[in-house]
Amino acid sequence: MSASIQASFSQTTTTPTQGRFISFEGTEGVGKTTAIEQLCARLQAHGIDYLRTREPGGSPFAERLREILLDPNTAINDDTELLLMFAARCDHMQQVILPALQRGTWVICDRFTDSTVAYQGFGRADGDAIVRAKIDMLIEQFVMQLPELTLWLDLPVLEGMARANKRSAADRFEQQATEFFTRVHQGFSVLASEQPERIQRIDASGSANEVSARIWQTIEEKLDI
Amino acid sequence: MSASIQASFSQTTTTPTQGRFISFEGTEGVGKTTAIEQLCARLQAHGIDYLRTREPGGSPFAERLREILLDPNTAINDDTELLLMFAARCDHMQQVILPALQRGTWVICDRFTDSTVAYQGFGRADGDAIVRAKIDMLIEQFVMQLPELTLWLDLPVLEGMARANKRSAADRFEQQATEFFTRVHQGFSVLASEQPERIQRIDASGSANEVSARIWQTIEEKLDI
Repeated sequence: MSASIQASFSQTTTTPTQGRFISFEGTEGVGKTTAIEQLCARLQAHGIDYLRTREPGGSPFAERLREILLDPNTAINDDTELLLMFAARCDHMQQVILPALQRGTWVICDRFTDSTVAYQGFGRADGDAIVRAKIDMLIEQFVMQLPELTLWLDLPVLEGMARANKRSAADRFEQQATEFFTRVHQGFSVLASEQPERIQRIDASGSANEVSARIWQTIEEKLDI
Repeated sequence: MSASIQASFSQTTTTPTQGRFISFEGTEGVGKTTAIEQLCARLQAHGIDYLRTREPGGSPFAERLREILLDPNTAINDDTELLLMFAARCDHMQQVILPALQRGTWVICDRFTDSTVAYQGFGRADGDAIVRAKIDMLIEQFVMQLPELTLWLDLPVLEGMARANKRSAADRFEQQATEFFTRVHQGFSVLASEQPERIQRIDASGSANEVSARIWQTIEEKLDI
């Protein structure tokens, strides 16, 4: 177990009521929704207070921005989109995430900063160094707290897309092509290698129960519950 | 005449069809609207194509964000507001300002980056170094072109507020107090001292025609028309 994880333990020891902040990441169709539902059921069974939230959105104001961001008719440039994403994230963080953590509630967030790096930095910009630097700078300046643990649900891109296509609503991101999701997947992979302590790769193949069991095992190990 | 202004001349010499980008700044009630109207009339009389625009707003998408930003019922934190401001500015820049300049049209903009520094950095945050650094970083990373000339209409704060109070609509910014506008005024003053070539202080006292004459003289001198 690494020093950074131990530091996080001692932090929660000195402030025992602080909640834990967990994010879920992955490309379309990897099973995030089901995995989050099953995790929440487990937390409830363990008597742990939790808040389930998502990005973009998660607070009333951020949900207004989410509507704009995911509207297929919204034609905005990449920089504008990036700034709107972080505006939504700022509101979500200050209105919802931080207050929940402060009252000891666990926060389970469907997508967070890593999705911005993967989708905007890799999917859209193919890992372009200038775009990545802009995103990293926005994270550093405007994101008050990163997740303690990020679960990256990893599945081959085509398998995920086949699963996603069974669902009805195709939003602006889901309309994009296989090449795009391949770059997004590469983005998550790069992030996981850069931040191996925070970002845990979860094999998302197999049944929902199997994935759920892998997730719970990782949480028990990493968060020492 | 400074090296930076000369550099700007040689740039417009090599691309002779490039329009000129002028912004107007100042606290409430200094007479920006009238001054801009009179400048536009003069440009028309000189046969110069111009586009009159404003911030926040100036493009259809940015005007949508302007409505949110100026709505007295919008309760968002300062960082969220800042990011929305720059999202609107990015869209305005790429949809409206740059295309106009490229086709040789002059752009006359009511407020630009300096208002963000003055209102959010000084009025709201009292010149706090961390907030100022965030704003400067957003300008550097997300604003593709600064105005060639910025006209800061300067009037004592109380005089401007007395003028502004005669107008009907009080938006979210205008509801704020005298102390706030005094800090905003200080912000413009600091910016003018930091960037003396770009930002020209215009004495906004006296009649509209007097102010207008001062502005035209400054434009003739600085833009060599």
